Amino acid sequence: MSRFFSATHKDLVPYVPGEQLNDKKYIKLNTNESPYPPSPAVERAVSEEVSRLRLYSDPDCKTLVHSLAKHYGVDEQSVVVTNGSDEILNFAFFAFCDKDNPVVFPDLTYGFYKVFAQLYNLPYEEIPLREDFTVCVDDYIGIGKNIFIANPNAPTGIALPLSDIERIVASNPDNFVLVDEAYVDFGGESAVGLIKKYPNLMVTQTFSKSRSLAGARLGMGFASPELIADINTIRYSTNPYNINRMTMVAGVAALEENGYYMNNCSEIMKTRDYTTEALRSLGFQVLDSKTNFVLAKSDKIKGEELYTKLRDRGILVRHFTNKRICDYNRITIGTPEQMETLICNVKEILEEK
Amino acid sequence: MSRFFSATHKDLVPYVPGEQLNDKKYIKLNTNESPYPPSPAVERAVSEEVSRLRLYSDPDCKTLVHSLAKHYGVDEQSVVVTNGSDEILNFAFFAFCDKDNPVVFPDLTYGFYKVFAQLYNLPYEEIPLREDFTVCVDDYIGIGKNIFIANPNAPTGIALPLSDIERIVASNPDNFVLVDEAYVDFGGESAVGLIKKYPNLMVTQTFSKSRSLAGARLGMGFASPELIADINTIRYSTNPYNINRMTMVAGVAALEENGYYMNNCSEIMKTRDYTTEALRSLGFQVLDSKTNFVLAKSDKIKGEELYTKLRDRGILVRHFTNKRICDYNRITIGTPEQMETLICNVKEILEEK
Repeated sequence: MSRFFSATHKDLVPYVPGEQLNDKKYIKLNTNESPYPPSPAVERAVSEEVSRLRLYSDPDCKTLVHSLAKHYGVDEQSVVVTNGSDEILNFAFFAFCDKDNPVVFPDLTYGFYKVFAQLYNLPYEEIPLREDFTVCVDDYIGIGKNIFIANPNAPTGIALPLSDIERIVASNPDNFVLVDEAYVDFGGESAVGLIKKYPNLMVTQTFSKSRSLAGARLGMGFASPELIADINTIRYSTNPYNINRMTMVAGVAALEENGYYMNNCSEIMKTRDYTTEALRSLGFQVLDSKTNFVLAKSDKIKGEELYTKLRDRGILVRHFTNKRICDYNRITIGTPEQMETLICNVKEILEEK
Repeated sequence: MSRFFSATHKDLVPYVPGEQLNDKKYIKLNTNESPYPPSPAVERAVSEEVSRLRLYSDPDCKTLVHSLAKHYGVDEQSVVVTNGSDEILNFAFFAFCDKDNPVVFPDLTYGFYKVFAQLYNLPYEEIPLREDFTVCVDDYIGIGKNIFIANPNAPTGIALPLSDIERIVASNPDNFVLVDEAYVDFGGESAVGLIKKYPNLMVTQTFSKSRSLAGARLGMGFASPELIADINTIRYSTNPYNINRMTMVAGVAALEENGYYMNNCSEIMKTRDYTTEALRSLGFQVLDSKTNFVLAKSDKIKGEELYTKLRDRGILVRHFTNKRICDYNRITIGTPEQMETLICNVKEILEEK
């Protein structure tokens, strides 16, 4: 830390992304990426766009916003796109929360919510998940604070039914509620259809998981035109050209080949169910996931030990040090072949004990 | 504005980017883009990277940071890359300025500095340029406040010699000084060589102008490892994956073909000198520019009238409403052919009066 760093930030603990190990070739099941590549139209669109890179990208992202509005059946004024969905989460914390507008989120959820709350010195509260890692919906009914909630939740993978989300949103009409649907395409129910009914609701999604574009950085938010205008005020006050030309055309192209991606999601859901069953057969407790990962633990081996032994065998999974889940590992769903390899290795590791 | 928008931001006036008109084909001389396309290696690198987009980009941007460090002759720990140089300016305002650390910048400079100062509710002061639009260096000597200074400056195009920059940095050892070198490759003197000597200095540059990658969004900062670590604390607390894979490989490829870009810069500087002379022959006052644009006015026609008449003829230049420069237009340097067309049109417009 330099002596020029503002005292405001001195205690800041940044987000820690999943490991990017390159010492050997790994089966990478640690950052919830899709095992399938982007569709052919994405490659064509991006390659064609390179010759235009000398020109700034469109700060209004008109073409992409138009495609998204059409695809999701909402008005163009109800859409904003960002440099990954982390950016819209950042904008939303900054735009709608302050010392008079505190924020709540589950104690076990996307780790970045807490970082944003601390970054902006916001009053915040982490509401514990139940013992079984489900969200206790009643905790949020009429809570009178801004709410950030991931549905399905991470790293648990557990989804709330849409009716529960609607109860939370409807019971807090004077507070901003953000539903983070990064994983919704793997079996969750989206709340995008509720944005016309609830002016306090924002729904965020991403092209990173279900649309195989983690490396292109593309997230989006859906909400009333008024909330979107506020996000755009912040966006135009920080980085109006936040979306580069290549990502913009990649997003449009991906939406045009939606069938390819939805088919991949079906495959991943099938592989997830296979993986869940296989791990349970080996004695693991596996939470019911509606995402492209599973959270699993075994009484036979500590979470960290399994993580380390898998890493030594060339398989990366994600281990968290948080006490409530340190016995677990979060395992991204890859191809059927990758998951078979995982299961074989887990079996061998348990047999060695 | 929604009723959920934080009161902190209610008076925020966002940055206004240059117009993106699409009603007809324009000669676009309004946003300081390069008239030359990216080099062939950029297209190859980007096209090849698309198949890897399913994977997150490297949050440490190792390859690109390595290339930049080598190219600029600095340590890797002295480099950070951002989603356009607007992002590093944003990070720097947020990281180093607060109510106890006010900030100063010229009254006529990059319009975003004022937006950032207001965004973070910082105490700030705009120091007037002299009547001839040069920076009065003595105003900044030992000022004891954080300083943001563009060199060469925009929209004037005027450059300070490196010795003046060094005097400013050296005389404010307890304050953070950022030198924004977005336009340095068009004839300015860079302060990058001073970062080892001055722990309070950060120098920012961009691939947008001299490297024909405005649409790829790539900026960078050079400073002591301590200042860079602080920027990274903020970056990892807002958007660790800020650079997408395509932009990362585009940046590396562009550095490998440096000769192509430096040759373009020479061409643009020649065209700038031609344009300056031609406008002066028509009676314009043209500031001495070390950038890829000129700021020019004529006593025969108001700035706004010339801007409008050029637009009607299919040529876009940038007009500012700020009182001190509303008689001027900022004209980006395009190809020699584009500038000849500009000059012909200006001549005709003046003859019509």
